[in-house]
Amino acid sequence: MRAEPTDSPEIEAAVAGVREDVARLHGELVRYGLVVWTGGNVSGRVPGADLFVIKPSGVAYDDLTAENMILCDLDGVVVPGSAGSDRSPSSDTAAHAYVYRHMPEVGGVVHTHSTYAVAWAARGEEIPCVITGMADEFGGPIPIGPFAVIGDESIGRGIVDTLRGHRSRAVLMRNHGPFTIGVTAKDAVKAAVMCEDAARSVHIARQGGPLIPIPQEKIDALYSRYQNVYGQSADERR
Amino acid sequence: MRAEPTDSPEIEAAVAGVREDVARLHGELVRYGLVVWTGGNVSGRVPGADLFVIKPSGVAYDDLTAENMILCDLDGVVVPGSAGSDRSPSSDTAAHAYVYRHMPEVGGVVHTHSTYAVAWAARGEEIPCVITGMADEFGGPIPIGPFAVIGDESIGRGIVDTLRGHRSRAVLMRNHGPFTIGVTAKDAVKAAVMCEDAARSVHIARQGGPLIPIPQEKIDALYSRYQNVYGQSADERR
Amino acid sequence: MRAEPTDSPEIEAAVAGVREDVARLHGELVRYGLVVWTGGNVSGRVPGADLFVIKPSGVAYDDLTAENMILCDLDGVVVPGSAGSDRSPSSDTAAHAYVYRHMPEVGGVVHTHSTYAVAWAARGEEIPCVITGMADEFGGPIPIGPFAVIGDESIGRGIVDTLRGHRSRAVLMRNHGPFTIGVTAKDAVKAAVMCEDAARSVHIARQGGPLIPIPQEKIDALYSRYQNVYGQSADERR
Amino acid sequence: MRAEPTDSPEIEAAVAGVREDVARLHGELVRYGLVVWTGGNVSGRVPGADLFVIKPSGVAYDDLTAENMILCDLDGVVVPGSAGSDRSPSSDTAAHAYVYRHMPEVGGVVHTHSTYAVAWAARGEEIPCVITGMADEFGGPIPIGPFAVIGDESIGRGIVDTLRGHRSRAVLMRNHGPFTIGVTAKDAVKAAVMCEDAARSVHIARQGGPLIPIPQEKIDALYSRYQNVYGQSADERR
Repeated sequence: MRAEPTDSPEIEAAVAGVREDVARLHGELVRYGLVVWTGGNVSGRVPGADLFVIKPSGVAYDDLTAENMILCDLDGVVVPGSAGSDRSPSSDTAAHAYVYRHMPEVGGVVHTHSTYAVAWAARGEEIPCVITGMADEFGGPIPIGPFAVIGDESIGRGIVDTLRGHRSRAVLMRNHGPFTIGVTAKDAVKAAVMCEDAARSVHIARQGGPLIPIPQEKIDALYSRYQNVYGQSADERR
Repeated sequence: MRAEPTDSPEIEAAVAGVREDVARLHGELVRYGLVVWTGGNVSGRVPGADLFVIKPSGVAYDDLTAENMILCDLDGVVVPGSAGSDRSPSSDTAAHAYVYRHMPEVGGVVHTHSTYAVAWAARGEEIPCVITGMADEFGGPIPIGPFAVIGDESIGRGIVDTLRGHRSRAVLMRNHGPFTIGVTAKDAVKAAVMCEDAARSVHIARQGGPLIPIPQEKIDALYSRYQNVYGQSADERR
Repeated sequence: MRAEPTDSPEIEAAVAGVREDVARLHGELVRYGLVVWTGGNVSGRVPGADLFVIKPSGVAYDDLTAENMILCDLDGVVVPGSAGSDRSPSSDTAAHAYVYRHMPEVGGVVHTHSTYAVAWAARGEEIPCVITGMADEFGGPIPIGPFAVIGDESIGRGIVDTLRGHRSRAVLMRNHGPFTIGVTAKDAVKAAVMCEDAARSVHIARQGGPLIPIPQEKIDALYSRYQNVYGQSADERR
Repeated sequence: MRAEPTDSPEIEAAVAGVREDVARLHGELVRYGLVVWTGGNVSGRVPGADLFVIKPSGVAYDDLTAENMILCDLDGVVVPGSAGSDRSPSSDTAAHAYVYRHMPEVGGVVHTHSTYAVAWAARGEEIPCVITGMADEFGGPIPIGPFAVIGDESIGRGIVDTLRGHRSRAVLMRNHGPFTIGVTAKDAVKAAVMCEDAARSVHIARQGGPLIPIPQEKIDALYSRYQNVYGQSADERR
């Protein structure tokens, strides 16, 4: 891979790692049926730098590689001379950049048009937390964000305003689709997978009749346990 | 590959390229679950000639190759002596030919019986544009075409009468299924994939309750941006 | 392969061919998602003999081979000494045998519990012919057969009584699932695939609102054309 | 593989076999779409010992091997020094252990969040037995278990209290998802696959209108036959 135009070998190594992760993680969107054609995108923040790596615009999933991922600064501007910088980044780059600028704890962002999440978004209806898997993962309902179109900061601002201080790592932007965040790109991809799973299960459940709510204190207990105990260690999401 | 019975090496090379594209693009119909058994077909116009390439009738997707694709003139007549000319072309060939004769800007045509698009077609109901992905791709609703059966020009005429002057590259022929057009065969295949995706998402959304419309000026803005800005260049669809 | 215990090398060769076909065709049931675990079965009549080949009972799809398919006479009795005769044939063997005894024109039988076909069967409701693909393939509605349980001739008789003289090659046995017939095993498998496709498309269509009927004379015209013109030749189903 | 810390070569061999089975059987959950990400788990009892083998917590399905499966005693405590004992077992281990302690006839336990089973669970509604495939496999409805959260014995007790003396090998824990049992791990996995298949088919059937019940004596006859006659022998589930 071509050397990244930074001053630091540490940052160059970090960029290389995030490029590999982000390219590979797009395969999970395909595996779980969250995307069709070239829709959907994953990005990951470069640890220790004001940079993130994102998918190029309109490139087929089969053709994604670490080298053609695109390196941007936190204004969403492509880093000149970096690998892939001859191509355009995802058309959602400004929204990702806004999230990284305003939520320093976020290390990864994902956007898809996954079917069931889009269905809730088209009705502007949050997904109620009626299954324990959703309580574990999101700690309550998955909220709706405002209607916003590409072209200014309104999508990014809608994501941040909705998710800041919220347990959910997923927001359904109205009439549009889900954006998810995480401490890493992998964690944000997991949130995208679990968001669609919850959207589908709760949709189908409700088609059959009234749902039984889960008491709030049980939701709180499930969320607390899952965030602290599940998996092999605190490093799991990394 | 056997030489094509044309006078021009340039056209022979162009035919060979379209044969490869059309054979390969059928794999996308399978990948996205738009077809079962031998249903569905893709065709592509040969640049610089009054010819197009289409799938043979009733041949399994696993068995499609550039060589067994069928070369037709714009009346849908198989070019004598061309590769594959010992077989019958798709039974939808007349409809494809009609589109190529009447819409010179069209370079590719696709027909499937994809599930959700067929469902809207069986109700004779256009798909409302309530999600931004549909605004991007189709610029409004996906319209219904007339009921027409194979045997004369009525299917082709129904497609052309519906899509001429319409933003949508997809039409749902009533009680039948979707036909899509594009500047290339690849572009028409993309339209078929996105049409089914929209048909599925909006169907599921509406099962859950009332949908929120998108204001027309927002649809216009999304469509305009996507047609002009998305992807790597104006050559993307080619 | 071990020689079949028949008097004729021609019949032995025919048996070998049907074994290969039947083993391989089970893979199509898996490919189209018509079966789970070991459910579902395909059989094929041996041309020129009062014999048919069927799947063994309760064997995983990954483990099916020409050699472990089971050869039966038209009473459903395993041919002693034939390859695979140490195993039990499909628990639906008696129903297949009944069809072969009473419908000499049938060369293949398929049974599945495919989801959408089972759904119509659980309501005892025939699938109305509201899409042209169904008119092509089945020439009208897909009918319901009686409720019948394994243990006597009632399933086989229900299939034959429903399909004899009917255009449809598929019957939905009430509260049970689809059985399909064809001139060959491949043709019966195609009918099983198209039956589930129709069951799914019409179910989803009706979830969204009232369906538009297709006039009977149009159904007749579509069916007639498809049976006589579609595909490469009259040998297509073989 | 590292030797297991037991006194007996017979038990060590049995553990090795169960490790292989349990690791491999997780692949069936993926194949049938019953799980996403790292959700879901299979365990198997070690014949002749008070031990069982279960999936590690939060490990990707692609990374499961016989060696990283985890060996536990019947209190759900990891056997010190055994292969994989440096990792945490599934967060559902206590529920599996409870079942093994209280149902000595059970040789395998499976838990998933499969979509349609979760949907019935979110409504607290048992799945009625309206299709013969369900009568075969479960001998009647699939019951609902109580709402219970991780942290004490309540999930395990809910499973045992519901399934003890019941024909069904599957229980839908309210607002949570299915747990299934079997005479072996493979048998429990089959029950998980058939439970989701029944949940999906009956859900879709009921979306279309009223269902026709199956008379109880027919359900009894189907269940009795299937448990005693289906498959190649009584060893089939092993």
